[in-house]
Amino acid sequence: MAEYTVTVEYNSTEKQFKVQKGTILLDALGEEERAQIDTPCGGKGICGKCKVTVIGEVPAEITAEEKKKLSEKELESGVRLACMTKVEGDIRVILASQSAYMQILEMGIEYKGESAPCVQKQHVSLSQPSLEDQRDDYQRLAEQLEIDDLPICNRELSKLPELLREQDFEVTAVYNQQEILTVEPGDTSSSNYGVAVDIGTTTVVAYLADLGSGKKIDIASDQNKQKAYGQDVISRINHTMKNEDGLDQLQDLIVSQINDLIHTLVKRNKVELEHVYSVILAGNTTMIHLATGLPPRYISTVPFIPVRKKRMLLSASELGIEIAENGRVYVLPMISGYIGADIVGAILASQIYQSTETNLLIDIGTNGEIVMGNKDGLVSCSTAAGPAFEGATIRHGVGGITGAINTMEMGSKDLVYTTIGDKKPIGICGSGIVDSVSTLLFLGIIDQTGRIVSEDEISTETGKMLSNRLTTVDNEPAVILATSKETGKEDIVLTQRDVREIQNVKASIAAGILTLIKHTGLEVEDIDHVYLAGGFGSYINRIHAVNLGLIPSALEERITVIGNAAGSGAMMALISKNRLFECDRIGEETEYVELSSLPQFQEDYVNCMFFGDTV
Amino acid sequence: MAEYTVTVEYNSTEKQFKVQKGTILLDALGEEERAQIDTPCGGKGICGKCKVTVIGEVPAEITAEEKKKLSEKELESGVRLACMTKVEGDIRVILASQSAYMQILEMGIEYKGESAPCVQKQHVSLSQPSLEDQRDDYQRLAEQLEIDDLPICNRELSKLPELLREQDFEVTAVYNQQEILTVEPGDTSSSNYGVAVDIGTTTVVAYLADLGSGKKIDIASDQNKQKAYGQDVISRINHTMKNEDGLDQLQDLIVSQINDLIHTLVKRNKVELEHVYSVILAGNTTMIHLATGLPPRYISTVPFIPVRKKRMLLSASELGIEIAENGRVYVLPMISGYIGADIVGAILASQIYQSTETNLLIDIGTNGEIVMGNKDGLVSCSTAAGPAFEGATIRHGVGGITGAINTMEMGSKDLVYTTIGDKKPIGICGSGIVDSVSTLLFLGIIDQTGRIVSEDEISTETGKMLSNRLTTVDNEPAVILATSKETGKEDIVLTQRDVREIQNVKASIAAGILTLIKHTGLEVEDIDHVYLAGGFGSYINRIHAVNLGLIPSALEERITVIGNAAGSGAMMALISKNRLFECDRIGEETEYVELSSLPQFQEDYVNCMFFGDTV
Repeated sequence: MAEYTVTVEYNSTEKQFKVQKGTILLDALGEEERAQIDTPCGGKGICGKCKVTVIGEVPAEITAEEKKKLSEKELESGVRLACMTKVEGDIRVILASQSAYMQILEMGIEYKGESAPCVQKQHVSLSQPSLEDQRDDYQRLAEQLEIDDLPICNRELSKLPELLREQDFEVTAVYNQQEILTVEPGDTSSSNYGVAVDIGTTTVVAYLADLGSGKKIDIASDQNKQKAYGQDVISRINHTMKNEDGLDQLQDLIVSQINDLIHTLVKRNKVELEHVYSVILAGNTTMIHLATGLPPRYISTVPFIPVRKKRMLLSASELGIEIAENGRVYVLPMISGYIGADIVGAILASQIYQSTETNLLIDIGTNGEIVMGNKDGLVSCSTAAGPAFEGATIRHGVGGITGAINTMEMGSKDLVYTTIGDKKPIGICGSGIVDSVSTLLFLGIIDQTGRIVSEDEISTETGKMLSNRLTTVDNEPAVILATSKETGKEDIVLTQRDVREIQNVKASIAAGILTLIKHTGLEVEDIDHVYLAGGFGSYINRIHAVNLGLIPSALEERITVIGNAAGSGAMMALISKNRLFECDRIGEETEYVELSSLPQFQEDYVNCMFFGDTV
Repeated sequence: MAEYTVTVEYNSTEKQFKVQKGTILLDALGEEERAQIDTPCGGKGICGKCKVTVIGEVPAEITAEEKKKLSEKELESGVRLACMTKVEGDIRVILASQSAYMQILEMGIEYKGESAPCVQKQHVSLSQPSLEDQRDDYQRLAEQLEIDDLPICNRELSKLPELLREQDFEVTAVYNQQEILTVEPGDTSSSNYGVAVDIGTTTVVAYLADLGSGKKIDIASDQNKQKAYGQDVISRINHTMKNEDGLDQLQDLIVSQINDLIHTLVKRNKVELEHVYSVILAGNTTMIHLATGLPPRYISTVPFIPVRKKRMLLSASELGIEIAENGRVYVLPMISGYIGADIVGAILASQIYQSTETNLLIDIGTNGEIVMGNKDGLVSCSTAAGPAFEGATIRHGVGGITGAINTMEMGSKDLVYTTIGDKKPIGICGSGIVDSVSTLLFLGIIDQTGRIVSEDEISTETGKMLSNRLTTVDNEPAVILATSKETGKEDIVLTQRDVREIQNVKASIAAGILTLIKHTGLEVEDIDHVYLAGGFGSYINRIHAVNLGLIPSALEERITVIGNAAGSGAMMALISKNRLFECDRIGEETEYVELSSLPQFQEDYVNCMFFGDTV
């Protein structure tokens, strides 16, 4: 069979793949390249997100799906769907580098407290053995460290005799509460580093900290490369179920990505990798399962059972994490299959578990996780918000990348928007979608039921100014947000289906909040603080969020944005072992309400489909 | 360079080795073959122990050393020293199979108590998960086991979800106090086996136990294959120091030997290897270091420092011990560089640490280890007895093999002896040596100073009947114990130098006992019980041992032989975790007296050189 060469340009580099005639272009690429391509529909030609540009003559026939999803102009300029195009000759493909321009939320609450990390270092100067003091080498060290009886692995122990004598009994011990991890020559006690990692379904953020001072040194982030195997946790779980080595594959991907981030951090900051002894992992329950090699399959089906929720302490080398040879990985505990270690981290960072006032913590991503309560008790739930706010199920939705419309409001005569990086608009991201729907709601172009009205139904005068923006796309009503003139390509529209997606998200979040309020027997007004965690919560416009009814209007003035709280929590646990141990209590004592088991939730959900206050 | 074939016959099998012209025969052999050859002098042609028979024409010249060490008759029948003979042509070599006929002490004190081993099994039937009971798989198991919070490695944890569901939530957990080792399908709780191993410098004994019933099932033993690298601990330590991979080599040897013994035991008793979850190791401090891969070098020089004395808990797979995949190895603690885990085992087995009476425990091997005391305190010392009783430094000394003279006494007119297996005498083993020296001492042929007297100095009439047995060998006085007529080869003699060797052993043991008695402020008569442990102690004739002065005459009637007490102790620790934990106290609380640091000991030693009571 004929073999063709696919040359891929991406991030100013070029790679070649040899594939058999007829291979689907998406399958022809390597993992790294696939990770740059969005495939929320799983390669079925439905979502139209996997656009790539094919340069030169494209021998492959344009499929019906491509004709439907790509504009004339796009087709002319060589844009194709990677999931549909077959390789029928030598071709050259250009990928838009997403991650290079992706807006990833790294910042959060800063930890201010003493540095007392799990992995400690202590320099000791031991007395020499003699006939009067025949203590063995281990005992001599352990007694001086005042950590008698702490185990040490035989590989490390076997090096001890020579090390002690070569160093004239001056060494530095590295240990945690479980064991002596290693013993180093001389005094290296001032070099103790750790990395906190928040593994999101979409993005991975890693923080490097100096555990001597407790200071954050640097941050690195990237899109989660597992994206190549599905946009959301369910499709990743499906991948592990359908492929015998699927779990290994996804684990290898995330582990090597964590390694890449760590390497970037240590290189950039001139830190020795062998002085990084600890890693803290946060992430949703599925991401943690994938990263630690635990099969996540029973999380995806009723009754949603994880393998293990408790905090884990793992050997970095066993996990494949490349830090100091005997380094350790601490995995924050989880609360349920859909309230993960990321939320435990966010609870830690927000300190709502110690607060005397009543708090509401909301993290909206693919799932919306909601936690309510204070030091006397926390209750949580998770709602399947779906990836609409990440742009995935929205016709022109994109992530927070350069060129994404990120704000929208009514100007004096027409809609006014901004884009990330102030570039030509290429799509619309989460905050832009919320702004758009909210603005059109204000203007009466969308009604409370979520319907895009017809021109003659527009209920406001201002709204009528936009009547020329009403259109139909694939036989459904739509509103043009940016014209082809502005985009240089096709119009960017908000379709009726897009609005329904947003209604679903709104309904699930609002009904989740309502459920917790009912569960605690409180009223909306009793909530003193609302903490918005995660990327979406950070970039969202509060007025629009309240207008949609995502957050009860009574709470508008009580909102605090806390950024990447999962990452902040992981950092705190990295720097302070007491904080880490508090996570255990958070994991064990936070109540979890399974919404799918509550008939009332379904009713609330339907009622909350209306835009505006429904809680 | 020419290459020759060395064909070795041993144990009814034949092996071939290709070696270069001029290779020393000993170096031409494999490890297994070398282990069958005694080389106490380290291959220097001094001891004459490495005799092998070379069949057919032997092209290599007979060396001066061989002429000195081998009789005419031996040389005629093809006997050569393996350490001196060069390979100068294709040759065929016959090794006498020692281990097949070696008398190894396996029996000891039987443990009678409840079975409560470290590694336990428990069958559980778990409730099914539901929306009302969303506990994760680990938690569901751990709570039912009532061992909440016990870690489990991720490899095992990752198998749990499928296992539980395939087995309808009926499984058997295998766990110790540290972790859940594995989870098995269905109910396998009745299959729990363990192996206790006593690693002696000379012999290795392994006991298989059913940890459900606490019953000993079977015993297997062999000579320690490390023998090929030296007869005693010091030469083995030297091997690890002189060869970069020496420690690995010796560790591999003992580990594979332990594996062989375990395989023999499970095969013979139709036990599944995967149902053997625990191994207990006892042995002297150096053997334990070699088996666990810890460098023993600082044990061999002042101030004799081990790497670690405390009890160790190791992963069997990391150590290379082939039992259940996640099996564990418990290493009994040690007291000092020369009071090892074997003595801790012997203290446990003899129960002197719980006794209200005053006890003396003596284990004579290459070193003589002596422990004195009771429940209020134990004090120990180790004396460098040397391997004389194992036959190594005695001209015609042999181990306890078939054909060894093992008893000797004066008959009506002449000496009367027995041999192991009632075969033609081929040498003299430990008990035979003690009997011989003692008998000659009774008869006045050896005087109290250890001198072999001349014919006219014999002080007893009976002794004079043996005057024809007096001879000289290599210009030193000697006594013929078995004539060439009886042996079919050369005379078996006891030389003046041999007697001096025995005096050294006697002096070191007696001075050791004296030191402990002085240290405790007691008198000889205060000792209520003397426990003789180990092979030598089991086979020795008490009357002769007392006559030599090895054991004070006042204690003759208080002697109890306790056999392989180290092995018995290891068995007890295997069956009962409480006994294992008691070893920690024994290890920590038994005082150790370093004889080499006591000037008084040297004086006592010299005084104890006289035969007879010196304590």
